[in-house]
Amino acid sequence: MPKIVDHDARRREIAQALWALLRREGPAAVTLRRVAAEAGWSLGAVRHYFASHDALLVHAMELVITRVGERIAALGPDPEPLAILEETLPLDDERRAEAQVWLAFTAVALSDPDLRALRDRTHVALRGLCVRVAGGDAARGELLHAAVDGLALHALLDPAVTTPDRQRALLRAAVARAQEA
Amino acid sequence: MPKIVDHDARRREIAQALWALLRREGPAAVTLRRVAAEAGWSLGAVRHYFASHDALLVHAMELVITRVGERIAALGPDPEPLAILEETLPLDDERRAEAQVWLAFTAVALSDPDLRALRDRTHVALRGLCVRVAGGDAARGELLHAAVDGLALHALLDPAVTTPDRQRALLRAAVARAQEA
Repeated sequence: MPKIVDHDARRREIAQALWALLRREGPAAVTLRRVAAEAGWSLGAVRHYFASHDALLVHAMELVITRVGERIAALGPDPEPLAILEETLPLDDERRAEAQVWLAFTAVALSDPDLRALRDRTHVALRGLCVRVAGGDAARGELLHAAVDGLALHALLDPAVTTPDRQRALLRAAVARAQEA
Repeated sequence: MPKIVDHDARRREIAQALWALLRREGPAAVTLRRVAAEAGWSLGAVRHYFASHDALLVHAMELVITRVGERIAALGPDPEPLAILEETLPLDDERRAEAQVWLAFTAVALSDPDLRALRDRTHVALRGLCVRVAGGDAARGELLHAAVDGLALHALLDPAVTTPDRQRALLRAAVARAQEA
């Protein structure tokens, strides 16, 4: 009987190893070799699913998009904009790992056209949400979007000052300003 | 007679090659090998001045800090906050190259303690300026800082939408809000 390999399950297994490594050591640690060691696999076996470091990084970014999307869906049918935007900020360890992937991916995507499409998709989605929060005003929406991404960046760089409570308070202020007439 | 080598001049020469490469191809192209080729040097000669890729990246970031500092100094004795902040945004090709270094350096520094000190220094300096612009109000200063860094990021990612004129207009709006009572 031929061996049945559940490829989706194996990809999920690699993804879990990738995510564990990422949370523990940051995006710089996410190499094919380290992910293979973390999953207890050979390098060749991991390469079968992810041909390159870029492919791993794309998968990590897709995971971030899926996770954020699932949490937003779980907020219910008509969530507060503030609650949606909070799902994109590094407010706990999980979202901090996501934000690290986002930053690493953004930096690499800037000079790698193959990665740009995925990065642009998240950019355009968050931009659209921010403009809606601003009642359709493009300038106020863009400024809110800049504040949200800047806050995420500062929370990563300086978590002792830009704490979760501080992020929430500043986000609330930014949303209130976006909604001022 | 021993050969006299002007080490500062050689470092400047490498820095010029690094910068030319960076502007043309982005931070991912900045490897010891590519910089050596750009300068017309051997890899070993470049290694004599920059032992690693991190050392090159640190030098690129120091160049950014020097350039921004010189432009701010050139604004005169008591410049407008808006004019100072504009020197940090990617408003032309030169500042765009600087912002690319800033983003690449930030992403790497996040998981590299050796690079953190330099990154933290620029973060703290811009934070201090933003809080002063906000009349000493920490929350309004932090939100301005988030908007400035977010704008720089968006101008890098999406230059067709976040054009230089748009950056200036949004920065002006962000500063005005930071200064509202």
